[in-house]
Amino acid sequence: MSSPFKTIALIGKHKNPEITTPLLHLGQYLVSRDVEVLLDCLTAANVAGKAYPAVTMEEIGVRADLAIVLGGDGTMLNIARKLAPFNVPLVGINQGRLGFLTDLSIDSMVETLGAMLDGRYVMERRMLLYVEVMRHDASVFSAMALNDVAVNRGVGGNMIEFEVRINGEYVYSLRSDGLIVATPTGSTAYALSAGGPILHPSLDLIALVPVSPHTLSNRPIVVEPDAIVEILMHRTAVARVHSDSHSHFDLREHDSVVVRRSPHEATLLHSSDHSYYRMLREKLGWSGLPRNPV
Amino acid sequence: MSSPFKTIALIGKHKNPEITTPLLHLGQYLVSRDVEVLLDCLTAANVAGKAYPAVTMEEIGVRADLAIVLGGDGTMLNIARKLAPFNVPLVGINQGRLGFLTDLSIDSMVETLGAMLDGRYVMERRMLLYVEVMRHDASVFSAMALNDVAVNRGVGGNMIEFEVRINGEYVYSLRSDGLIVATPTGSTAYALSAGGPILHPSLDLIALVPVSPHTLSNRPIVVEPDAIVEILMHRTAVARVHSDSHSHFDLREHDSVVVRRSPHEATLLHSSDHSYYRMLREKLGWSGLPRNPV
Amino acid sequence: MSSPFKTIALIGKHKNPEITTPLLHLGQYLVSRDVEVLLDCLTAANVAGKAYPAVTMEEIGVRADLAIVLGGDGTMLNIARKLAPFNVPLVGINQGRLGFLTDLSIDSMVETLGAMLDGRYVMERRMLLYVEVMRHDASVFSAMALNDVAVNRGVGGNMIEFEVRINGEYVYSLRSDGLIVATPTGSTAYALSAGGPILHPSLDLIALVPVSPHTLSNRPIVVEPDAIVEILMHRTAVARVHSDSHSHFDLREHDSVVVRRSPHEATLLHSSDHSYYRMLREKLGWSGLPRNPV
Amino acid sequence: MSSPFKTIALIGKHKNPEITTPLLHLGQYLVSRDVEVLLDCLTAANVAGKAYPAVTMEEIGVRADLAIVLGGDGTMLNIARKLAPFNVPLVGINQGRLGFLTDLSIDSMVETLGAMLDGRYVMERRMLLYVEVMRHDASVFSAMALNDVAVNRGVGGNMIEFEVRINGEYVYSLRSDGLIVATPTGSTAYALSAGGPILHPSLDLIALVPVSPHTLSNRPIVVEPDAIVEILMHRTAVARVHSDSHSHFDLREHDSVVVRRSPHEATLLHSSDHSYYRMLREKLGWSGLPRNPV
Repeated sequence: MSSPFKTIALIGKHKNPEITTPLLHLGQYLVSRDVEVLLDCLTAANVAGKAYPAVTMEEIGVRADLAIVLGGDGTMLNIARKLAPFNVPLVGINQGRLGFLTDLSIDSMVETLGAMLDGRYVMERRMLLYVEVMRHDASVFSAMALNDVAVNRGVGGNMIEFEVRINGEYVYSLRSDGLIVATPTGSTAYALSAGGPILHPSLDLIALVPVSPHTLSNRPIVVEPDAIVEILMHRTAVARVHSDSHSHFDLREHDSVVVRRSPHEATLLHSSDHSYYRMLREKLGWSGLPRNPV
Repeated sequence: MSSPFKTIALIGKHKNPEITTPLLHLGQYLVSRDVEVLLDCLTAANVAGKAYPAVTMEEIGVRADLAIVLGGDGTMLNIARKLAPFNVPLVGINQGRLGFLTDLSIDSMVETLGAMLDGRYVMERRMLLYVEVMRHDASVFSAMALNDVAVNRGVGGNMIEFEVRINGEYVYSLRSDGLIVATPTGSTAYALSAGGPILHPSLDLIALVPVSPHTLSNRPIVVEPDAIVEILMHRTAVARVHSDSHSHFDLREHDSVVVRRSPHEATLLHSSDHSYYRMLREKLGWSGLPRNPV
Repeated sequence: MSSPFKTIALIGKHKNPEITTPLLHLGQYLVSRDVEVLLDCLTAANVAGKAYPAVTMEEIGVRADLAIVLGGDGTMLNIARKLAPFNVPLVGINQGRLGFLTDLSIDSMVETLGAMLDGRYVMERRMLLYVEVMRHDASVFSAMALNDVAVNRGVGGNMIEFEVRINGEYVYSLRSDGLIVATPTGSTAYALSAGGPILHPSLDLIALVPVSPHTLSNRPIVVEPDAIVEILMHRTAVARVHSDSHSHFDLREHDSVVVRRSPHEATLLHSSDHSYYRMLREKLGWSGLPRNPV
Repeated sequence: MSSPFKTIALIGKHKNPEITTPLLHLGQYLVSRDVEVLLDCLTAANVAGKAYPAVTMEEIGVRADLAIVLGGDGTMLNIARKLAPFNVPLVGINQGRLGFLTDLSIDSMVETLGAMLDGRYVMERRMLLYVEVMRHDASVFSAMALNDVAVNRGVGGNMIEFEVRINGEYVYSLRSDGLIVATPTGSTAYALSAGGPILHPSLDLIALVPVSPHTLSNRPIVVEPDAIVEILMHRTAVARVHSDSHSHFDLREHDSVVVRRSPHEATLLHSSDHSYYRMLREKLGWSGLPRNPV
């Protein structure tokens, strides 16, 4: 059987020369399997020699059948957002402790990728969010997010105040440190620290998770993926919106932060024995023995 | 336009003679609108005279186009479970403080029902759960639940220990006071007190919410509605399973509590200006002023 | 019996001309009771005429036997910090909804103050914190706090990382949105929103409350009032320390934020029927009816 | 220097023959150090031969200068309650994973006890609670607790309802799964699972921690150690009071559960390098790496 992945792009964590060796090792293996290898041009800057064509992310989007990311979950989030419009599946390889998105170990990467080239893998879609900041009816900022869009107080000492609307309907007003609008992918990231639920990544859902809400009875709400969530800023001396804890934009009073589902999706490939629940147990320490076996 | 509701059943909170007057008032109005009125036979025991035919819940299921429940959310849960196999829509009227399910006030019930007879209403489906306890491969208990299935420690002083599997896959082992398996309807009931998220009732989802988990990093998980959730009891001196805090069954070690979506659904009718978020704000006290306006 | 309060200072919320009328009314009453009235000079700027001597906060500290604050809890916090070194007792009067610290209503202020002049009141001490930021062994910032000292991430999208030491002993390292070091007074303010416990204000204690901790098992810890709490900043692109959500200072990597008990205390006067638990019930909405009376 | 511990009692987990070998090993060592060894009579039933005099717990209380407990935290709680009236210090040795109270490993017990006999140890006092159930002005149950007194719903499907008073003053009414009244020692046990704060064990404090409170804004409260906490049962179909998850008593409507500080205290001995914070880190998994190092 011929592999569905004829052209594969290699992308490494930026400014991280340590990944050169595993990256070249991986490239060598892929070539031995008759795969055409592309190298992300920013990654190529760290790699001596001209082993593989260095191309832009757009070219990867157009030409690659698969993108392999060496790095942490942060790198994976960045690449997933960039490649989402192109429908290129992603595989994440982590040098250190495995992440939620980078769930392949560098030690077994060759075997796992070999199996993938043979057609043995699990494919998974993940929904993305699209955030737009409206100011006087004009869009002044927009971004995509795979994990979450968060409105947080900035350097100010006071909580921010805002109003939440869903599909145009008033939901609540809140004073808090912030509000996280998370996808199922993001439900195990920042939103979990703020007390949000874990949403199985096979679901398309949006969670609204308040951070340190002044109203003590305010709780996380889970809504349909097509909900249009609007956060209308009231008192925002120094509020900011972040997407995936990465791009950010300073908000002003009366700004409206509109979050909706992105038309694009990320596609992730896992090894065929991938288990989401095992990953949860390992990363959240659920496998530990009882604390106090009275 | 002729009403879709030609035959309507009236059901009151059991052993509650106070509902007689509003119930007869309602019956009178329905008759004036050419509706055939049936009376739940248990309710009829509280009502003097033989104004309307007293029938069993099964007959209501077969004959009625609509069932009107006068009582609290507890009564509504009971009736909804019983009528779910018959697809009879339900309306809930509350004498006191409105409930999540009994959202019509007794003061405006005639106007609201009049509008419903004229075709002005919002119809909503709600998923139900079905729980079965397996002991040595035999089913020893089963029940339906509109809110939740909860496994709790009984009178014992110690936490219970169990293992959770979803679709046959091991998820986690836990020592805790209990585990709540909740529908979106139940997400604002017991599960909310235990720290679970609010799930919009238009969604079909299942939430697993631990009660006082010994593993501090254990958190509520939201899974797909078709998930088969299995709770395998390890140490259960005195554990019990409850459905809707109502039917219960004593569990033994090695019992398996299997929770899955019921094939039946409940249908609720609301007034045309019904707002779920307004109800949340009112019932959870979100409309309150800030606590500490520094 | 002669009043213990011969000289009383009046202090209003700054830039708030609405308090002029009640303030003058109050002054008139105090004069009628043979009290010498002083006016805070910043407050005096809002008050027409030269009814009372306008003095600095230091003069109030030296001369006044009592300070009456008209404003919200924020104003009260500011004045309490400033007068703490002088041991001047404080009374808080709120024009709107009562606060935790401003628990006298403007409507009954004359009666309540009359009773206080007659010697009928409850006196309460509250501990304060003192925070100092050490950079290369030099103190670069210091402040007092009646509520809390909070280290928070600033405008950055990422959590901050720090290490906590108590009395020189390593306690934990944490990635989080922040850490709140709160007094019992502050336990019902920001710390409560972040999940901290309520500490009875008669106690001298320090609570460490993490904000959105990445380590899910990290929980609030309550330690002795003489504990020296040190927060050593690891990754602090844009962290800030705040005292009472008011003074702030930008932190750098390796800065050490040292929080200890202040040698000063605040003294609060309440009406003789003051009840801390009633205030909790009212401000936290505990008096509400059950949410879902199934 | 002569040891302060001339007579030492050995107490093992009941019905646990595995402790015989380490227990005899320990006895041998103590005899070699000229210590008089007593054996708890219930423990002696598991030990072949008549190596040491088998005595009752009361005799241990009167005669022993130190009691060494081999078992888990549950055994330690039981013995601590029994010996508290006699002021006998306790040392806890755990065969498996160390507990909060049994913090000596069986592997290093001889060295650690040797050091203790030489006078190198840390001594710690821990407050105890005393609970009494009043029914029609008569005391119908009483017990001591080192961890906590908990009122919980029993096998019933419904929450219990009760009213809390402190020093005779009304605090709140609550519907919930229960209420935990915990000491600092108990703050890392059941109360922690229910969302309570960690109280440093050097403090004398009482924490009130609600379990699954229906009022979402109800939060743990920490009060002074001399507070008299009264829980007045309203709706208690099947409520129970537990002390240390051990003794229990079935409650009826109108019963009053009164919890106050016990006049007795427990005394614990630790090795001289004992660190409470290190124990917290280890037992709560705080030493783990970050979950999601984006």
